[in-house]
Amino acid sequence: MKDMFIRRKEQQMLKKDRSSIGQIDSKIKNLCDLINSMNNYYTTSSCSGRIAILLDSPRKEEGLFLFRTHEKTNAIEILDILKESSSKSEDKIVIFKQEPCIITIACRTREDAEVILEIAREKAGWKNSGIMSSKRNICELRSTEHLALPIMKNKKILVDDEFIEVLVEESNLRLEKTWEKIEKLEKELKNLDKKHYPAEA
Amino acid sequence: MKDMFIRRKEQQMLKKDRSSIGQIDSKIKNLCDLINSMNNYYTTSSCSGRIAILLDSPRKEEGLFLFRTHEKTNAIEILDILKESSSKSEDKIVIFKQEPCIITIACRTREDAEVILEIAREKAGWKNSGIMSSKRNICELRSTEHLALPIMKNKKILVDDEFIEVLVEESNLRLEKTWEKIEKLEKELKNLDKKHYPAEA
Repeated sequence: MKDMFIRRKEQQMLKKDRSSIGQIDSKIKNLCDLINSMNNYYTTSSCSGRIAILLDSPRKEEGLFLFRTHEKTNAIEILDILKESSSKSEDKIVIFKQEPCIITIACRTREDAEVILEIAREKAGWKNSGIMSSKRNICELRSTEHLALPIMKNKKILVDDEFIEVLVEESNLRLEKTWEKIEKLEKELKNLDKKHYPAEA
Repeated sequence: MKDMFIRRKEQQMLKKDRSSIGQIDSKIKNLCDLINSMNNYYTTSSCSGRIAILLDSPRKEEGLFLFRTHEKTNAIEILDILKESSSKSEDKIVIFKQEPCIITIACRTREDAEVILEIAREKAGWKNSGIMSSKRNICELRSTEHLALPIMKNKKILVDDEFIEVLVEESNLRLEKTWEKIEKLEKELKNLDKKHYPAEA
């Protein structure tokens, strides 16, 4: 008889990509596939890192995002989005964000969670990682690259074009660094002892 | 005979405040004292949240910080610091940061770690919390309020006074929110079943 972990994993694997960004997040797909090929793990969500513009709000709710991308961006694109969305923002503060790669993993046992957590933190530089729910051994692996600032208030862009150039450059650099962390984790997981963490037959 | 946990706790309690910011972080002291009064927990580090200005660097190293405070700030203070430190920054990028409250806790057992983690995440809004090393049951509790942006490059301030006004206002607001989370966690921990988590005699 199949155990509960395998049954939950099979159910998770049947789910379609539920990413709200509406595009396949290709830079983290290989890493997710690798983790899902291992008997003792499966992924429940992931993001390869992103640049986003959104309305500031105390709660997560529908319709806050004005722009989201997993790709590098440029100053013209950002300026266009800010100009287009000024009417939508009303008197709200608009936030520009660059966020790191993140991946949520269900692990069969506590020891499996410890193994992947230590590799992520100590060998691959995903320093903001931890076990988020130890009842079901859920790990959240997260890297560190991030920026966040108010960029528009009362429909007015708060910064000039030169700042946006620097901001975009710095955001793109951090995305590159976060993508390197994805490759590093993938490489480290491939080195894991296959006897203890065999790929599924 | 005293167990290892108690011995490590006693050693930790003997240490002086090693905070590099050089001031007692009063807003989180009561929470730390409460946690340290419980048999199954002790704190190893904490920060009530802060505003900082620092040189961008791929590594954590000495001498990067140009300014750090646990208190609210104002635009004049920030502008003065940027002007004063422009010569120190050379061709480096200078980053402005607002960071949330964070506390690292050693827990006696895995179950103790789970208890405090769930309270922090689900009842007190410290959403970026997790078990960072499950071998020693170390929890890192962290809230979510944060800002981070490039503010100076090649000795030149990249933003105008009006932006700094908004930035300081938003940073101060987030500090207030993070302080509320500290109070919330303290309140929730006081409600913990004293039978299971007795204060030390």
